Amino acid sequence: MTRLLALLILTTMTLPALSENPVAIAIHGGAGTIERGNLSEAQETAIRSALTEAAQAGHRILSEGGTSLDAVVAAIVILEDAPEFNAGRGAVLTHEGTVELDASIMDGASLAAGAVAGVSGIRHPIEAARRVMTDSPHVLLAGPGANQFARSQGLEFMDEDWFITEFRAEQLRAVQARQDASMQLSEDWFSTVGAVAVDRHGNLAAATSTGGMTNKRWGRVGDSPIIGAGTYADNRACAVSATGHGEFFIRHAVAYDICARVRYTEASLADAAHTVVNQVLTEAGGDGGVIAVDPSGHISMPFNTQGMYRASIDAQGQLDVAIYADD
Amino acid sequence: MTRLLALLILTTMTLPALSENPVAIAIHGGAGTIERGNLSEAQETAIRSALTEAAQAGHRILSEGGTSLDAVVAAIVILEDAPEFNAGRGAVLTHEGTVELDASIMDGASLAAGAVAGVSGIRHPIEAARRVMTDSPHVLLAGPGANQFARSQGLEFMDEDWFITEFRAEQLRAVQARQDASMQLSEDWFSTVGAVAVDRHGNLAAATSTGGMTNKRWGRVGDSPIIGAGTYADNRACAVSATGHGEFFIRHAVAYDICARVRYTEASLADAAHTVVNQVLTEAGGDGGVIAVDPSGHISMPFNTQGMYRASIDAQGQLDVAIYADD
Repeated sequence: MTRLLALLILTTMTLPALSENPVAIAIHGGAGTIERGNLSEAQETAIRSALTEAAQAGHRILSEGGTSLDAVVAAIVILEDAPEFNAGRGAVLTHEGTVELDASIMDGASLAAGAVAGVSGIRHPIEAARRVMTDSPHVLLAGPGANQFARSQGLEFMDEDWFITEFRAEQLRAVQARQDASMQLSEDWFSTVGAVAVDRHGNLAAATSTGGMTNKRWGRVGDSPIIGAGTYADNRACAVSATGHGEFFIRHAVAYDICARVRYTEASLADAAHTVVNQVLTEAGGDGGVIAVDPSGHISMPFNTQGMYRASIDAQGQLDVAIYADD
Repeated sequence: MTRLLALLILTTMTLPALSENPVAIAIHGGAGTIERGNLSEAQETAIRSALTEAAQAGHRILSEGGTSLDAVVAAIVILEDAPEFNAGRGAVLTHEGTVELDASIMDGASLAAGAVAGVSGIRHPIEAARRVMTDSPHVLLAGPGANQFARSQGLEFMDEDWFITEFRAEQLRAVQARQDASMQLSEDWFSTVGAVAVDRHGNLAAATSTGGMTNKRWGRVGDSPIIGAGTYADNRACAVSATGHGEFFIRHAVAYDICARVRYTEASLADAAHTVVNQVLTEAGGDGGVIAVDPSGHISMPFNTQGMYRASIDAQGQLDVAIYADD
């Protein structure tokens, strides 16, 4: 009887844990042409270390019962601060040598979303996107108006110099030297950052942050701040964050399309993500990749480029950090 | 034998006409709360006259074998010039009393797309959107950079005064007087303009142009310049232009979702458009409507508001101009 009671108590105590949704997180730091040997050992170590730190920061929140929204923001702010990635500090430079940042976030439970495009000086654009979602009636704010909104929200601003690394300044000089000044760069590396997560409540979230394309001009906006293109989350399907040649991701509504295929067809998340990245985008000539997670914690990270900086911690708690296709 | 030959020649001559795709066009000039008697007879006449003129201008191009892209642009430029509609001349004013215009266009044959957000002084923003599609490697340009691109393309600019009507100036004063200056207007009328068409080659096109929301601030961007939200065209499914409370149309990727339902489910265009407007958007609290056309020339124009300014010329050449739900 005592043993039965003990068993009953044990069962009751573990039931909540058993009935909780598995948690999982995936992050990316860009996709493109990359071969072993292009990165120095020190660079590769710094990149793997930042990816690991970001995935673990997000996962810690999920493990402790926190929300997927908090988890994706925690991961992104680390990547925005890391100078190795094209987001926040270390972002690529515009044609004029300035920094213009884009970010977006979406809540799969409510379909609430927020985004900023072409902002300057905001240390963490992903936090500005989140404030647009939570503290404005809008989804997308752009340019100086978006900066003004971020200031009114008390977000942290930094001098432009803080964002600009010597590497990006040199990259801009090299691009502008090798091409007609009126041409846009044809990129071979798209180092947007992003995160997707599912929390204990089964709620999904997706977030993306970027500096866009090196040498961009005319106020060019890519897919990162576009809900449906670079970012989408819907508890009925999946959460997706994209990285790649943004124009193709907008035309094909990539993030939304993956969710639509999961909802409307028999496709699993892995099938839907694979088809969109390796068939639709590849046939259109659109380079890049996505990270995606579904409510059961399945993670998919297809890309049609040589490499994609990525990390994940799956439903079993397994950490995976990778750069190359065969990594 | 002579009769057989004559029949053969006749058959051969009529075959091209028989095998040509039916042409159709639909346009909208906004949706919202409107009751009979709110409009003066003169206003209603002016609106119906502009809608008719725009539909006929687009249809004339289609009838003569022109492209759906040319047809939707021809319709939109008429509505942009007409002061009755919230696009181009007669657009609503921002919080600061200025005019900030958004537009987008998409080619259903190639999935090429172009858009501008927050531009000023461009007489026909839809032409700027088209130039982004045809003469830049980008899809979306925003703010002063987009103006600069439009100037480099030789597009027509007008002084800001040309855009501002006394009606819109009074509307802004009324809105700012009746609410806390920090609040955004909760609109009951969304008078974006749009056009969708299918041409003799079976190619679809969609286009949308707007001034956005009265009293908008912080660089707010709605769904009109967002490919997948306010505008989408795909020859495999349909062409859609939306009008309504833009934030809801972005969160639900309305234009893309209607096309996705047509492609991935058994839904007809009418079913898909009806479900998204009258179920998905209505349940979310998103007011508005869409116009849509499929490759066979079927037209669908559902809205969940009291009225939507609209006109169409269907595959049989039948003109229909309407304002109210029971019109």
